[in-house]
Amino acid sequence: MQLENYVRDIQGFPKEGILFKDITPLLNDPEARHKCLEILVESLKGQKIDKVIGAESRGFFFGMLLADRLNAGFVPVRKPKKLPFDTISASYDLEYGTDALEIHVDAIKKGERVLIHDDVLATGGTAKAMETLVKELGGEIIQFNFLMELSFLNGREKIKDNTIFAAITY
Amino acid sequence: MQLENYVRDIQGFPKEGILFKDITPLLNDPEARHKCLEILVESLKGQKIDKVIGAESRGFFFGMLLADRLNAGFVPVRKPKKLPFDTISASYDLEYGTDALEIHVDAIKKGERVLIHDDVLATGGTAKAMETLVKELGGEIIQFNFLMELSFLNGREKIKDNTIFAAITY
Repeated sequence: MQLENYVRDIQGFPKEGILFKDITPLLNDPEARHKCLEILVESLKGQKIDKVIGAESRGFFFGMLLADRLNAGFVPVRKPKKLPFDTISASYDLEYGTDALEIHVDAIKKGERVLIHDDVLATGGTAKAMETLVKELGGEIIQFNFLMELSFLNGREKIKDNTIFAAITY
Repeated sequence: MQLENYVRDIQGFPKEGILFKDITPLLNDPEARHKCLEILVESLKGQKIDKVIGAESRGFFFGMLLADRLNAGFVPVRKPKKLPFDTISASYDLEYGTDALEIHVDAIKKGERVLIHDDVLATGGTAKAMETLVKELGGEIIQFNFLMELSFLNGREKIKDNTIFAAITY
């Protein structure tokens, strides 16, 4: 089974000139989804994980499945003002301007072993912001994992002090 | 174990006068999360499900876990312009104005057995919109399930032709 066959190219989404990788066919196929999850779990080689962090909102999909398989807590990282309790924030650069991500202040305890998950590693901006948030709460980052890495955007450089894994590389 | 102990009341979120039910403690506790999932799965009494539909974005959390346990496809329903492929849309009323939800046109095949999931059944607006979308694609709705039902808002009335289950009722 080729996971790539369950990722659909959409030309011009969300705006002209962008080739978007649509993972909804992967979510919709239980067998392919299961295979993808297995690959992500195996990449951890049995390391204990206390918390899985997933970024809004496509990082929630496999983030929850990973937390379930690893018997770990799941922690959503969200855009500003989406989380209801006290938060800390980390900003990151966009093509024009900046955006930010937030995490609940009580989501990770000092010394907990953290897996950071998102659907795509592109320029690495959101990944770097997640690293900042986890470190500020005192978590130990065991791995970053992604469904796919767009390697030509070199996002890996921004989080280079970490172990990085992607199920699919473009 | 009382699931209610893992739902946190936040006064005044997202705006003044609203008592928000924060499920992040439930997501963050593997044992409580597992128990909640078990209750939702048991409510189906072994009925076969082909597709689980989850609403953006808190419906993605347990929606994915349900799809995993039921060996079903997962289908995200999202706010307008968030889904990259061809969609159909259903609108619903807000306190002031309207909003809409979209689903990919190829997400459900005619006759497929569908479980509709969301975190909260409140006034029932989004639930009704999801019913409309699933029916338009020809799916058969087996159950609506929710982590919690705010019964004083009477959302149940809007989807009354269906089987409805909630793990927690307020």
